[in-house]
Amino acid sequence: MKPTVGFIGLGLMGKPMALNVLKAGYPLVVWNRTAARAEGLVREGAKLGASPAATAAQADVLITIVSDPPAVEKILWGADGALPALRRGSVLIDSSTISPELARKTAVACEKNGVGYLDAPVTGGTWGAEKGELVFMVGGKSETLEKVRPVLEAMGKKIFHLGPNGAGQTVKLAMNLILALQVEALAEALALVTHAGVAGEKLVEVMQASMARAAVLDVKAPLILKNEFPPSFPLRLMHKDIRLALELARQEGITLPAAAASYATYSAVKEASKDDPDYAAVARFWQKT
Amino acid sequence: MKPTVGFIGLGLMGKPMALNVLKAGYPLVVWNRTAARAEGLVREGAKLGASPAATAAQADVLITIVSDPPAVEKILWGADGALPALRRGSVLIDSSTISPELARKTAVACEKNGVGYLDAPVTGGTWGAEKGELVFMVGGKSETLEKVRPVLEAMGKKIFHLGPNGAGQTVKLAMNLILALQVEALAEALALVTHAGVAGEKLVEVMQASMARAAVLDVKAPLILKNEFPPSFPLRLMHKDIRLALELARQEGITLPAAAASYATYSAVKEASKDDPDYAAVARFWQKT
Repeated sequence: MKPTVGFIGLGLMGKPMALNVLKAGYPLVVWNRTAARAEGLVREGAKLGASPAATAAQADVLITIVSDPPAVEKILWGADGALPALRRGSVLIDSSTISPELARKTAVACEKNGVGYLDAPVTGGTWGAEKGELVFMVGGKSETLEKVRPVLEAMGKKIFHLGPNGAGQTVKLAMNLILALQVEALAEALALVTHAGVAGEKLVEVMQASMARAAVLDVKAPLILKNEFPPSFPLRLMHKDIRLALELARQEGITLPAAAASYATYSAVKEASKDDPDYAAVARFWQKT
Repeated sequence: MKPTVGFIGLGLMGKPMALNVLKAGYPLVVWNRTAARAEGLVREGAKLGASPAATAAQADVLITIVSDPPAVEKILWGADGALPALRRGSVLIDSSTISPELARKTAVACEKNGVGYLDAPVTGGTWGAEKGELVFMVGGKSETLEKVRPVLEAMGKKIFHLGPNGAGQTVKLAMNLILALQVEALAEALALVTHAGVAGEKLVEVMQASMARAAVLDVKAPLILKNEFPPSFPLRLMHKDIRLALELARQEGITLPAAAASYATYSAVKEASKDDPDYAAVARFWQKT
């Protein structure tokens, strides 16, 4: 019989990931802060956990994916938190994007309880989550990864083992830094040409025929040109991830000049936006008012 | 009989471009500040011009590609400069990367003499120049472009007509801004992971499987990982192009925060480099000393 999977965090990413685990035949127990987000999964056969602790207590493998480090701390160590409830021999997979430091702290706490731990943040967006084609960036012990690999394979097409705990988060922060700067670069370039009297569409057309072409720009350029930003990866989360990257850089004693400048741009747009836009909305920084 | 083409500027880009014009069967007259750079072309059948003026005087179409705005001003308006020598009815194509402002000034001067003018900077690097697969970003009149299109097609695979004079340069500066920031982003991300104890190769491997993949990064990542920077597009020229983009932004009354920060990084590396490296050498900024 397949191991029981617990799943905490049914947001834009978590919900389709959990559905793929269920479809792969794993008994599934889910919990979400807003319970209504669990309804579809329950209709498909998942059990609803009463709390993070109650969910963890039933799980052989517990997957968590919530929005930021404070949310991770709350579901693990808060009231009715998951961590003390995890059974000896179970494995916690955290797919949230957090600091490598918090990943290592969680690993130590798990080890004390005889629980395996992987930091396993993902990339691929909501599209990848729905198709089961996410990329997992894993930090932790090989034997722990091998134990849960089939569960990860239900959600992802590529699983990279990058080193000990924290390494998955380190690479994820670096990855999102590249994405944030690529989109900032496009936004700055579009601001430049449009203010100088050339239609943004022309820059995009030339770009796609040149060395400047990039996967993320194929996806985000149309949003910027239309000035419509339905959230695939929300700007508030990208803003948080740039902050985590800058904090890691500070701990390592290096400066990241473009990342720091871009953080200021994302911050300004986050403050000014009344909706919850995709991070391509960084282009709003240059909108004529 | 095919029109005679004059070609001024036989650098990393100009030399292979001129060779492709010659191979396409155009009578070719060449001039370069360092005459030795013309030897190969002369062996292949090109004539050597005695000066920019003497080269221009023989040309139905004059192509110029030199390193920066002062170099353009010198070959056009300096001693024995090309511009006064151009014949009525001829066309000047400037493929240098310069300010849109200087392009428009040159267009006005050409028009007074009955000479057609296109700003037609290129992208595609030395590889594209050698293969005849450059992308031309053209500003100017349609009828002027149509007159010289076959000459451009000898050197390039795509020709984008982007608007009136200056539009080609505007898009080129925006394009190089994207490239400069993409490579800066990769360099910052690699600095982050390596300082945090993860091998840079791992980030590149994950990146290439993710939405962060980009054409320029496939080319530049290996250079950064090997810490070897033979110039394909020299850092000193990218540094100049970011400066031109920032100057254009200032004229248009907008700020480009990441571009400004990145300019400082490229400046620092340019000052510290004793060789003439490719712009991927921006990664030297984070080298442990």
